Amino acid sequence: MSSPETPTRGYTQDKAAYARRLKRIEGQVRGVQRMIDEDTYCIDVLTQISAIQSALKSVSLGLMEEHLGHCVKHAVEAAHDSGDPSDMDAKLAEANAAIARLVKS
Amino acid sequence: MSSPETPTRGYTQDKAAYARRLKRIEGQVRGVQRMIDEDTYCIDVLTQISAIQSALKSVSLGLMEEHLGHCVKHAVEAAHDSGDPSDMDAKLAEANAAIARLVKS
Amino acid sequence: MSSPETPTRGYTQDKAAYARRLKRIEGQVRGVQRMIDEDTYCIDVLTQISAIQSALKSVSLGLMEEHLGHCVKHAVEAAHDSGDPSDMDAKLAEANAAIARLVKS
Amino acid sequence: MSSPETPTRGYTQDKAAYARRLKRIEGQVRGVQRMIDEDTYCIDVLTQISAIQSALKSVSLGLMEEHLGHCVKHAVEAAHDSGDPSDMDAKLAEANAAIARLVKS
Repeated sequence: MSSPETPTRGYTQDKAAYARRLKRIEGQVRGVQRMIDEDTYCIDVLTQISAIQSALKSVSLGLMEEHLGHCVKHAVEAAHDSGDPSDMDAKLAEANAAIARLVKS
Repeated sequence: MSSPETPTRGYTQDKAAYARRLKRIEGQVRGVQRMIDEDTYCIDVLTQISAIQSALKSVSLGLMEEHLGHCVKHAVEAAHDSGDPSDMDAKLAEANAAIARLVKS
Repeated sequence: MSSPETPTRGYTQDKAAYARRLKRIEGQVRGVQRMIDEDTYCIDVLTQISAIQSALKSVSLGLMEEHLGHCVKHAVEAAHDSGDPSDMDAKLAEANAAIARLVKS
Repeated sequence: MSSPETPTRGYTQDKAAYARRLKRIEGQVRGVQRMIDEDTYCIDVLTQISAIQSALKSVSLGLMEEHLGHCVKHAVEAAHDSGDPSDMDAKLAEANAAIARLVKS
């Protein structure tokens, strides 16, 4: 249960899994630093960076999925109950901007 | 310091700059871990991950540029001198595969 | 003309604008065919294909935005009213899969 | 054999295959127009656009591969023979910019 100080996020129940995935990604980034330091062949460095990109993309898609299924869903329900769509509209605009950044990054 | 055993790579002369950029990316990944740990709003986490992706993409493009301008260039010259294209063909195939991974990652 | 059998989609009110954008994209694809036929310089062909990719990406982001703001929104409201989340869950899963394809395509 | 009026490009020997692929992509774009016109479900339209994006990406990667293996290769050889790297440097810069556009588009 969340206290007033700790907001619940879409990803909250999977926090430990996200922490582990990001820890692994951090290790992969350190691995690339080591490869550069050891003059590893360019193509092998590039392959490793592509693996990091895929792992980050997968984290982003997971966060977005949980954002839509929690934050956006709750905003739609609240707007439906209250008749005031302003927060929902803001949340949708924000989600769309984040999807666009994800697609372009 | 480079010993006779240390191969020169396309990125060798920019090694320090790449090391710094990757160090900064490592810090950004740790920043995302902290954001998750502190239940930061999903969209802000996603924005930060998009920034990391852009930074990694930029590193990859830099490495690819130097790979083409050094390793691939030298392989083409060597094939031109020797009349044996086999190493050049392998280098080109490898570069193309890396470009495809970069485009898809 | 919309008959009772014609479903309304998220993009329905912007149909004419989407039709125009896709017509223009079709013309761009034909332009690339002409470039190839006339042995246009590879890099210029690639630039034109990149322009098409950006235009298609922008259409996809628009359709996704309208999908979230209409179809997904309605599914959330219906689930909220009926207490049965099954259609909403299916719609969210489908949207997430489409976002993933968009990010990876 | 190419006449003075018809430049040879990296893709010249595969021209017919590229023409066919682009013709098929043009048909796919027309298919999306028809889907929009018939109020097809948003997600199905998005899936079709993702298929077009993948097909275009594959065409771009093919063109880039042939560009590197022909135009860039010849520029490197010419620079090696003449000792004047200016055209080669321009070709490499151009290829790198095209790869960056491809990665970002």
